[in-house]
This record gives sequence, structure tokens and C-alpha cells, in this order.
Amino acid sequence: MRHIIFGESHGPVIGVTVEGVPAGLALDLKKVQRELDRRRPGQDPTATARKESDRVEVLSGLFEGKTTGTPLTMIIRNSNQHSGDYDALRYTPRPSHGDYAGFIKSKGCQDHRGGGHFSGRLTAPLVAAGAVAKQILAQKGVTVGAHISSIYGICDASLEDTAELAAVAEKAFPVLDDAKGEEMRQAILEAKEELDSVGGAIECAVTGLPAGLGAPDFGCNVEGIFSQYLFAVPAVKGVDFGAGVAFSLMRGSEANDPFAVEDGKVVTKTNHAGGVNGGITNGMPVTFEVTIRPTPSIALPQESVDLRTGEEIEIEIKGRHDPCIVPRAVPVIEAAAALAACALLGI
Amino acid sequence: MRHIIFGESHGPVIGVTVEGVPAGLALDLKKVQRELDRRRPGQDPTATARKESDRVEVLSGLFEGKTTGTPLTMIIRNSNQHSGDYDALRYTPRPSHGDYAGFIKSKGCQDHRGGGHFSGRLTAPLVAAGAVAKQILAQKGVTVGAHISSIYGICDASLEDTAELAAVAEKAFPVLDDAKGEEMRQAILEAKEELDSVGGAIECAVTGLPAGLGAPDFGCNVEGIFSQYLFAVPAVKGVDFGAGVAFSLMRGSEANDPFAVEDGKVVTKTNHAGGVNGGITNGMPVTFEVTIRPTPSIALPQESVDLRTGEEIEIEIKGRHDPCIVPRAVPVIEAAAALAACALLGI
Amino acid sequence: MRHIIFGESHGPVIGVTVEGVPAGLALDLKKVQRELDRRRPGQDPTATARKESDRVEVLSGLFEGKTTGTPLTMIIRNSNQHSGDYDALRYTPRPSHGDYAGFIKSKGCQDHRGGGHFSGRLTAPLVAAGAVAKQILAQKGVTVGAHISSIYGICDASLEDTAELAAVAEKAFPVLDDAKGEEMRQAILEAKEELDSVGGAIECAVTGLPAGLGAPDFGCNVEGIFSQYLFAVPAVKGVDFGAGVAFSLMRGSEANDPFAVEDGKVVTKTNHAGGVNGGITNGMPVTFEVTIRPTPSIALPQESVDLRTGEEIEIEIKGRHDPCIVPRAVPVIEAAAALAACALLGI
Amino acid sequence: MRHIIFGESHGPVIGVTVEGVPAGLALDLKKVQRELDRRRPGQDPTATARKESDRVEVLSGLFEGKTTGTPLTMIIRNSNQHSGDYDALRYTPRPSHGDYAGFIKSKGCQDHRGGGHFSGRLTAPLVAAGAVAKQILAQKGVTVGAHISSIYGICDASLEDTAELAAVAEKAFPVLDDAKGEEMRQAILEAKEELDSVGGAIECAVTGLPAGLGAPDFGCNVEGIFSQYLFAVPAVKGVDFGAGVAFSLMRGSEANDPFAVEDGKVVTKTNHAGGVNGGITNGMPVTFEVTIRPTPSIALPQESVDLRTGEEIEIEIKGRHDPCIVPRAVPVIEAAAALAACALLGI
Repeated sequence: MRHIIFGESHGPVIGVTVEGVPAGLALDLKKVQRELDRRRPGQDPTATARKESDRVEVLSGLFEGKTTGTPLTMIIRNSNQHSGDYDALRYTPRPSHGDYAGFIKSKGCQDHRGGGHFSGRLTAPLVAAGAVAKQILAQKGVTVGAHISSIYGICDASLEDTAELAAVAEKAFPVLDDAKGEEMRQAILEAKEELDSVGGAIECAVTGLPAGLGAPDFGCNVEGIFSQYLFAVPAVKGVDFGAGVAFSLMRGSEANDPFAVEDGKVVTKTNHAGGVNGGITNGMPVTFEVTIRPTPSIALPQESVDLRTGEEIEIEIKGRHDPCIVPRAVPVIEAAAALAACALLGI
Repeated sequence: MRHIIFGESHGPVIGVTVEGVPAGLALDLKKVQRELDRRRPGQDPTATARKESDRVEVLSGLFEGKTTGTPLTMIIRNSNQHSGDYDALRYTPRPSHGDYAGFIKSKGCQDHRGGGHFSGRLTAPLVAAGAVAKQILAQKGVTVGAHISSIYGICDASLEDTAELAAVAEKAFPVLDDAKGEEMRQAILEAKEELDSVGGAIECAVTGLPAGLGAPDFGCNVEGIFSQYLFAVPAVKGVDFGAGVAFSLMRGSEANDPFAVEDGKVVTKTNHAGGVNGGITNGMPVTFEVTIRPTPSIALPQESVDLRTGEEIEIEIKGRHDPCIVPRAVPVIEAAAALAACALLGI
Repeated sequence: MRHIIFGESHGPVIGVTVEGVPAGLALDLKKVQRELDRRRPGQDPTATARKESDRVEVLSGLFEGKTTGTPLTMIIRNSNQHSGDYDALRYTPRPSHGDYAGFIKSKGCQDHRGGGHFSGRLTAPLVAAGAVAKQILAQKGVTVGAHISSIYGICDASLEDTAELAAVAEKAFPVLDDAKGEEMRQAILEAKEELDSVGGAIECAVTGLPAGLGAPDFGCNVEGIFSQYLFAVPAVKGVDFGAGVAFSLMRGSEANDPFAVEDGKVVTKTNHAGGVNGGITNGMPVTFEVTIRPTPSIALPQESVDLRTGEEIEIEIKGRHDPCIVPRAVPVIEAAAALAACALLGI
Repeated sequence: MRHIIFGESHGPVIGVTVEGVPAGLALDLKKVQRELDRRRPGQDPTATARKESDRVEVLSGLFEGKTTGTPLTMIIRNSNQHSGDYDALRYTPRPSHGDYAGFIKSKGCQDHRGGGHFSGRLTAPLVAAGAVAKQILAQKGVTVGAHISSIYGICDASLEDTAELAAVAEKAFPVLDDAKGEEMRQAILEAKEELDSVGGAIECAVTGLPAGLGAPDFGCNVEGIFSQYLFAVPAVKGVDFGAGVAFSLMRGSEANDPFAVEDGKVVTKTNHAGGVNGGITNGMPVTFEVTIRPTPSIALPQESVDLRTGEEIEIEIKGRHDPCIVPRAVPVIEAAAALAACALLGI
């Protein structure tokens, strides 16, 4: 499967075309919609006040409820757009947004309204594509789950068993430990009140992948494949597998995962490697943590430059923005991981 | 350019074929060899006692000292192999090595001697390919540099100016602050004495890339392209751009990089974004940190499984291994980054 | 640029998503529509009686009349569908159509109505994508033109000068010699009357490509790149460059193109090579001929098999089909060639 | 599997690196050598008098006689080089060779000796890679065979049954009808005597591919995939599937392949489609014909241009060249087809 996500935040639609979907899948569109609803704002008071109904429509590749194996196109119509909010900032890029880089790349021709194609809104079609991937994976016994691992330094409980993630997916605020979740919410609301935003991290696990997928080589290794999907999610700035950055503090004797035999199957007693050795799956869950930067759209005054005149200028961002994108990014990270898992399986 | 690295640790040669090298480059083979020498063991007492001469030979793609634009193949002949060291471990995989995953993938047919194709030795041809990439980049004013940012929790000085990295490349132990380097060395030697190993991290910067390269989309975004090259380096378990994992602790007001005008050019006053916004370069140095896990080959007894009988078994790894791979990985990370930078530039 | 064509003949829309369109192109949608109109049935009495309005709509990637550089999605809404015509043939594949192969591939799940995704109708979005490519090429002085070179053995005049093709593009029946065109028309109408169809060939030329594009190697050579685009056009069964199949009858002394100097530029006196030597452009027009098979949908009774029962069965195809697809395929071949030329130019 | 062919005609070696070879294949190197011997000159008096021993050596990816699944590199050492023969032509490109196009592409830096990387000699590593592919295919019941279908207008007997091709592979002059082969030989020797060369065509069949492989879409369709491999063979100027160019002379009622049931399996009574409908295999043999241009290297005087001075000049090509490359190209076309078949099968 390969996919192209298209659309702009304030254009007529956003959508995705997925090529190579296996034929004959009885696609459950309610489940696709359910994933979109998890991502949709308005689920939790910490999110943006924008209303987005985000109803998925299938344009191609589905016939009598089953995938045909030909390209599957899904769209979501845009609405509730306050395009006027953005005109003031057309030539004064918002710090740490894609505005300036996009301006240069597009020779000044990008759709500046609501971030255009760079908007976090474009993660909705990614979630739709990922929801299809999840249904394919389910048939192979592969599941994908994630939780908020930290927000502004407040850490969720450690994930002891990947099975716990199924219940997390049902929560409006997807954490293992709801008390910790409440603390995180407070941190977000405080930031919001101070016209600011906060970052965090998401831990994700893919279970059920057989040992032996991937290769050590460029373009084929498991970490490289996953990271390519994950970094395509806006705001992701780091991807760390297994013990992740803690490896830098470890000795080999701590970091190494001892082998054992369980029910006649080779397993490792720990999973610091995150299910990957030598770029190849070892049969343990593939686990990783992604770092999500604070939402760059904050209401505080910021320093910018007028791209027409070259003058430094102070800007204030209007519009309705998430003070923390992490909770809504959980299903997005799952979607990216599901697509990566399909790629690894040669789907 | 696309490359395929081939060879096994104890086969006749290791090498790389690079397709798409621009024609007409006066390739300085001494500089290629210099990069290989930086990676070669024996530069520092903290490294393995193995002797590897690692002389690069060009088999194709070079004529009268210039690249022809047709595939460039470089090889390094293997020697000083103690293949017998490995026979005992053929069916008892070393924890956290690629042995087990490779065994499954290859249906038991991999070359087990010295890690075969999974050996860290395969980073030598990567360094050779990267040395070619560096010469191409130099013509475009792009430079790549790196330093050890930490080993076993001991941190190097902060990188204030990417220009400092040129001097670091000359050092046997590539750190900014030699006193910190001495502490790191001690930590490595202690680990070695205790038959153990340690992990660390490398910070890398690519300067001179123009703004506007990349795209937010899957397969095109800067972070995704870099990470695909970086995770193809064995032992890399995490890739974090700019402020990296610290983003999870930050507020937007801290994380955002204010714009300014300097010498008529738009810059950012800080570079927490690591030179990338919206998946596109913004003209600032592209910076990232990679986490390097502790060498999995340690002399301490470890738990494994006999893959023939399915019995749990204790193993001891013989052979000569680096107690810390981080110092020798510095030119390898630079090589991977150079290849990624070429990819971004459409070379 | 890479593109995915999506949609089914009797689904809601057909369309294309094009990634990598250069930003800042003032896209002339009238020209895009003009290309679609050239392909549209109803231009000539020899074509199908189906009415298709084929209005192009842009869903993404265009802002204020200019391309943004982000994925460009164009759709055409379907209408005038007689889906009922096809139900009788759902399990009795039409000979030499994609029905049977598609049935196997899709595990019986393809949209059988009107050929579904296999329909010649899917060449409309290809023409739209090609029309964008043509506008990009025009800025670089590259033009693409084609004419019917033969139908059922009746040959058009030889193309002496590629400049003649501009006028051909304006004709409802795109030939150089209208008298020959009239003969071809008669052959088509005779076949139609006899409930049959006829095949033919199209010659295409791409002028203005600089020398030095491509490479001899797999995946990079000019003929391979063009043929990949051309064979993706339904009904194309052969692609032959320059002198084409006549090379098999030639001696080297006839086939070789002598070099000469014209206006200080190296040219060849003949262009038997079709502008390509060693897989690389030589600066002469890239020329090739594609063979278009007779429309497989004919009204005569034909032998099929009932895929449910495995019994041999005679079928009769209802519906409105072109007795010859060649005239309408001319803009389609141009579109495929334009996309290939962009690929060669690294666009 | 993807491969990169490297080397120059007069460099130290020519070779190929193949990535993605399935692990565990007991590679029969004698069969690989046997394929190289079929291609080697000196098998038939019509070929060049150059002596090439063409012994294959494996550098990587093979351990204890089995493929490891890691990149397989095979080389052939060059010898018997008369490099001096080529110095006179360094700046005066041979008509219809890659010399001029290569000169422009490489900015004058290509290895001009013996055609460098553009030499037909580079088909030797292709044959080696194809020989590996054939062994993989054999395990899946897929076979590849070819014969000379015509030389200079003299046609071989029609291929009635693809099983006949096994015997052809044993012949020094690979035709079905040896009497026709003798006529072809005479045509070649006559051309040789007159310091000229001749072209021809090769018909190839791939049997045993299951129905349902491929897709109608760009990048996925069977004809497109095969043609990409075939056009990467130097001197191939046309690729035509099934009835090929004869489709242009046919009516649908002749061209369509009626369905039938044979031994409970759906087949077609004829195979004009060459085993492909809608870009997808239909279970019949995939058949195609490639056109091979006359060898451009002829001893007759020819018109060239001195690239240093821009003056027109007459040249005479020295060296030992095949007056017809078609017989030796038969195993090369089989090799390319075998690699394409593997690609289709997802290997």
C-alpha cells in the first residue's frame, strides 16, 4: 500500500488515496469513522473549540462493501472555516510553523489559510487510511495501540502489558492512569489560560508481528520504515524505539534482553530493544515513543518577519488552536504505525 | 543517489554500490580513506583490539580520477578474521544482536561468523559512500559534522556553533570538551574491565542546506528522509531533531523559534526546530541527536536459547568487541547524514 | 511527480492525485479541459454514442490559480451510466478484457459495472494529469504531439517534421493526411456495422528534451521510463522507439544515424534511434509508436465461461462501445508521454 | 529483488549487486555459469572474435552454498582488453552508440574504452542476476525461454508450444527451425563480409505465472514491469506483447481470445493477449517480442563530429564487434524476463 494525502485546511475537501489495498476486505466504515472521532476536536475540554464533523466518504475502491483492490480514495469535506482569521498572517510566518519553509518551497504560492496543506487537519485522512490498515492487520492478528506517555513532564504509568492499550483507546483522554491524566489536563488548561501550549510524548506498541520482518539495510529496516511514517505526522520531532534515549545511560548488561523459551516459543525476558534487533523484528511487540512538540500556534505575541518588506514584526495568532495536540495525536500515531506495519508485512 | 551495501564480516570483501553519483566529480580518494580511518578501530585505547586496515578500492564508476556518473562500487577486503570464535554461538543467539531475528529471516542460512552482514563492520562501506557524498556536498557549501554528545550519562559541552565541529573531526575521541571526553573514556574503560559495555548519543549538524527542501508529506519530509538513513546504522535506536525529547517538557513559548532578519536573510534566533518546520528545511542547520545502544557483545555470561533443541542455555561471547561503539560511530552518523542531505538535494 | 489514478467507471467520480507538482504554475484549467474534450466521445461519428461531459474539478493543490506544490487532486464526476447493461456479464468475463484477470486478482470483488477501474474511462484523469504536465513542459520548451499512424492497416502519411503535430491536435480525427483519415474512418464504420472493432497505432514525438537525460541502467533508461507510462494506458500492447520493429529488417549502415553539425549544435541527419542512444536522450526528438489493440468489447457473440459454475457459455456484450479506440487514444498517449518527459526531467 | 549493475568494459570488473534475494536458496553456480556461457562470444562463428572467459565469482550473500537473503554481489573480472583500439574515437562519437549521449550526460567524463558502462559486455552481470532469478522461479514452477524470431527479415518457425523453448536453450544458435537458423547465419556472415551488421527480433515466453498478478495502474501493470527490465538491455528498441504490432491490423473478433475450460481451469483458446489483460496476468504464458537493432559498431566509414572542435569528421571503428547481437542476446532477454517475473511475484 502506498498513500497520498491531499487537500488543504480551507479547501473543499481533505482526503487520501491508498493504492494497493488488498481486495476482498469487508471494510467497516463505522470503525473508520470511530477512529476519526477519536481524533476529532471536541472530545475533551482541553482541545480546540473548532467544530469539525469529519465524516468520511469513500469515492473509489469499494464495491458492495468490499475493497476492490484498486485505489481507495476517502475524503472529508471541510466546513466551519474562518478563513479570514488567517489573512493578517499571510506574509508574516508564525514561528515554528511550516509557514516560512512552505513559503520558500512554494515560491509564495501556498494556501496560507489555516496552514493549508501543512495543517494538523491533514492528519484526519491519515487516520482514515490507518483505520483501513488496522482492519487489514486485525485479520493477521496484529494490533496497534498507544497512550499519552507524558505531557509537560507529567508521566503516565508505565506500560506493563500491551493488552492494556485496548481500554485506553476508549478514553477521551487516552492514558493508562487517569489520575495522571487529570494532572496532564490541568497542565494543558494552565498553559491555555496563559495563552501558551505544551508538548508531550506518546508511546505506541504494535503486537503480533512475526519475527523475521525487515532487514538491516537502508530502506528495509524496521526502525527506518516506522520512522518514515511517524515523522510524516506534523509535530513529531523524535522517534525512539524500545528503551529509547535511556539506552544512552545504560550498560550492555542492563540493555540486553535475555532470551527465554515460553510455550515452546523463543521470547526475550525484557523488551528494551522494542521488538527489533539488527533492523528485523524479533517477535516481541514493536514499541516506540514519539516526541510531540508544543503546538506552535499560541496566542502570546511572537516575533516574525514581513516577507514582503523584510522587516521584523510582532504578530498575534488568532483562531482556535489546541493548547496541546498530544491527546488528539494518539490515534494519528496509531494510524501511522498501522500503515508502517502493513508496509513491513509487504501489504 | 541510491546505494546498496553488501558483504559479510568474514566474507572476502565488504562494499557498496552507489547509483546516481553525479558525473565529473574529481573524487579525492585520500579523503575517503581518511573518513574510513576515523572509523577504523585502533585509533583510541577504548576501541576493540581487532586490526582492520580498511583500504578502499574502487571497482567501477571512476575514470581518470573523475566520477563517470555510472554506478560507483567501492570495496574493502576483509582480513584478520577469527572465524572460529563464532562457531560456538552459531545456534545460540547473542542477546540483543541481530542473530536470532536474522536466523528466522534467513531460515537459518545467515553467515553467523562475526555477525555476517549484520556486523558493525558493514558501516565501513557506508562511511566510504558518505565520504563521496561529503565531497559532493562540499561543492554546494553543505557541511556535515558530529560529536559525541554523551556516553553513559556523561555529557559533552553544548554545541554553540556548528563551526566547532570541523575541529572535532580531527580528534581521536571526537568531543567538544576534552575533559568531558576523558571522563567518558574512563566510563568506557571501567565498563570494559567489568566485561560490560556502555551506550551514548551523538549530535550531528548539517549546515548550508537551503530553505525549502522537503515536504510535509510521507516519503518527502526532511525528518523522515534523515531518519531512514540514520536508522540503517546498526545500534541507532532513536533519532530526535532539534530540541528532541526535551520538546515534551516545553511550552510553545519556549519551543518556538522567533524569526529575525540577519544580513538581509530570514533566520530564527534559536534553532529548537533543528532546521525543519512542516517537514521542510528553513535554512537553519539541520540538527539531530541519535541514541546509540550499548554494544550488545559483552563478555559477561548471558541467557540464550539453543535454536536446535529449544533449550535455554548460558553463553559467553568470545572475540574482540568495542566496549562502546559511540566514538567510532561518529563518522558513520556523519556519512548517513551526508547521504540523506544528498537525497534531499535531489542528488 | 507521481500520480495515482482512482475511481470506477460507474462509481461517483474518477480522478487523479498528483504529488510533486512544481509550485507556482499558473494552471490554465481551460487547457486541461480542452485536452479532456479531445478525448471525450462524441467528437467524431466513429466513436461511442455515450455522452460524457467530463468536466474537471480541482479538489486540492491549487490556490488563487496557482499550484501550491502540494498534492493536486482533480476529479470528474460520473454520469450517464447504464449500470444495468453489465449485470448479465458479472460472472461471464468478456474475452480480452480485464474482467477475468481482475476477477482473480480481486477475489471476485471488483466493480464489474462498465469495467470498473479497468475501464478506458479511467484515461480521462490521466489526460488531466498529462495536461498539467504539458503546461510544465511548455515552460521548458518541451512539446508533445501525436497522430494516428495506422488503423486496420491504413497508414497515415509519414511524419517528416514534428512541428506538423500541432495542427493535428486541433482535428477531430487526428491524422496528418485527411484523405487517409477518411479511409480509416470508413474501415472503422465498416467494422462497427459488422458488430466488430479494429486496432491501429499512434506515433508520438516529444521535442525539446535536452541531450543527456536518462541512463543505460535499469529504472533510469529513457525507453524504460516512457514505456512504463505508455503501457499503463489500457489497450497499448506494444511500444517501439524510432525505427521500431523495422530495425529487425535493417543493416547497421542503414540504421545508424550519422552525426552532423547544424547551427553549431551536434545533431543526427536521421533519427532512427528515436532520440535515444544508450538509454540517454541525444537531443533529437524522442519518437515512438504504440500499438493499440482492437476494442475487445464487440457486439458479436463470443465464447466465455461462467465463473460460478465453470461452464463454457456464449455471451453478447451490450452497451455502447467504441469500434476503434485509436482516435480518442491520441491525447491519452500524449498525456502519458508528457508525464514520462516530466519524470525524465526530474520533475 | 532490486539490482544494480556496475562496471566498465575495460575496468577491473563488471558485476551486479542484487538486494532482496530470498534466503535459503541452494544456488547452483554451475547453472549461473552455464547461462553466462550461452551469452559468451565464441559459441558460434557469427559472433565476435573477442575471447572472454566470463567466470562468475560471488563476493557476498552466499554462505555454505545457500543464499543468506542479504545482498548478493557477483563479479566477472575483465581481461583480453584492447583499450588502445578506442583512444582514436574518444572525442568522435560512434553513430547510434551511447558515446555522444553519454559524453553529454557525464560532462565528458565517461570511460570511453570499449563503450565503458554502455558496453554490451554489461549484459553479462545481468545474465548472472537472471540466472539466480531463474532458480528462484523454477521452485515456483515458472520457466522462461526464448528464441531468435527473426534476423534481417528471415523468420524462425512460429512458436506453437512454449515447451519447445527448453531444447532451443541448448543450441549455439537458438532457433526453433535450424534450417532457418542457417539462413540467418548466412545473412549475418554476408553483412560481416560487407563490414556491416544486421538486426533482428527475439520472442520470449514466461510460463507458469498464476493469473491475477499485476494491476492496470501505472507502476504495477505487467507490460510496464516487463518492459522496464527489457528496455534496460542495450539495443532493445521495441517491446510488443502477444500479437504485438499485428494488433494494428486486426479486428476485435480476430484479436480476442475466446475463453474455454480445460481440466477444470479457465484458459483462452488463443493467446493473442500474451497472457495479460487489463495489465494483469490471466494465467496463460506471458509472451512478447523484442526488437534488437543492428549492432551500431560497423567497420564501414561513418560520419561523426569531433566534440572538441565541433568539426564534422569521418571515422572508422576498429576493434572486434558482433555483426549481429541477436543470437547472444537470447539469454540476456531471458534474464531480464526472469527478473521481471520475480518482481511480479513480489520476490
